[in-house]
Amino acid sequence: MDKIVFVTTNKGKMWEAVAIGKQYGIGFTQDEYDAAEMQSNDLEKIAAKCAADAHAHIKKPLIVEDSGVFVEALGGFPGPYSAYVIKTIEIEGILKLMDGVGNRRAVMRSALVFADGKRLKTFAGEVRGVIADNRRGVGGFGYDPIFIPNGWKKTFSEDTDYKLRVSHRAQSIRKFCEWYAKR
Amino acid sequence: MDKIVFVTTNKGKMWEAVAIGKQYGIGFTQDEYDAAEMQSNDLEKIAAKCAADAHAHIKKPLIVEDSGVFVEALGGFPGPYSAYVIKTIEIEGILKLMDGVGNRRAVMRSALVFADGKRLKTFAGEVRGVIADNRRGVGGFGYDPIFIPNGWKKTFSEDTDYKLRVSHRAQSIRKFCEWYAKR
Repeated sequence: MDKIVFVTTNKGKMWEAVAIGKQYGIGFTQDEYDAAEMQSNDLEKIAAKCAADAHAHIKKPLIVEDSGVFVEALGGFPGPYSAYVIKTIEIEGILKLMDGVGNRRAVMRSALVFADGKRLKTFAGEVRGVIADNRRGVGGFGYDPIFIPNGWKKTFSEDTDYKLRVSHRAQSIRKFCEWYAKR
Repeated sequence: MDKIVFVTTNKGKMWEAVAIGKQYGIGFTQDEYDAAEMQSNDLEKIAAKCAADAHAHIKKPLIVEDSGVFVEALGGFPGPYSAYVIKTIEIEGILKLMDGVGNRRAVMRSALVFADGKRLKTFAGEVRGVIADNRRGVGGFGYDPIFIPNGWKKTFSEDTDYKLRVSHRAQSIRKFCEWYAKR
């Protein structure tokens, strides 16, 4: 089985990649190399720069994935800084900011970049939904406890099987695997 | 009068540098070059990388300044992403997050980096204070309407003269000017 390096410190992301990759005969190994992320509103730009940086260091075919939740009523916040926001004001901060806000629409976006020294190739995914009124469920990570995808009643944390089928990251990982399997 | 390039898109910062520089016989010209900022909790690292990047492009002695407000009860949020947060959830978002929070302590930090192709030199400043309950005053910019420095009753927006004497950025600019004047 082909093994591709997944540069991430996030075990949850790693688990999702392994679960999806299996369906395509593609394996992943984790590398926790801490590539410098740039400040930008553009997830693809951030991931591409990280992937180039990581490849210069690791020198093996690899992927980097950057994702964020963009809340419409908050002007797209926390967007590319979703991980930082989770570490500081946490889920509770987002719920407080959304307290009394009628428009709960949000988009989760993922940008996955493959680098092998010859090229950088980008795969994107996105899922639309709403921010829940309360934290619900224990699965997943990040914003999963408060994100309900459109057409569904449960948060991603309450239904991680469903998350693995439809999430922003599931989409970008699947697109990558399809491309990689027949390249 | 010596003229140093100040790489910034922020007219308010430019105005502060000019006002302080005058006292040292140092002038500044603005350059709006958009240096890529990295994601980091370390303002000095962010500013140093921007300064090196900007110097490679502009090729003249220059300064870059990065600043942020670190709110204790919010785990240091918004910190290095203060500018992004002002553009998305705005002052009102910060006030909402601080609603009902007793500990109002916050620190404003500034990191100024000088680059001339031979060296990068860093100057830091910080001012401690509290987050006001409401927006007050019209002067300044950024978090000035809700930041009250310790030992003072007015926000920076209500008293920009005082801000120019004691602020985080006034300190880093002054340290730079003192060093530059006698280098």
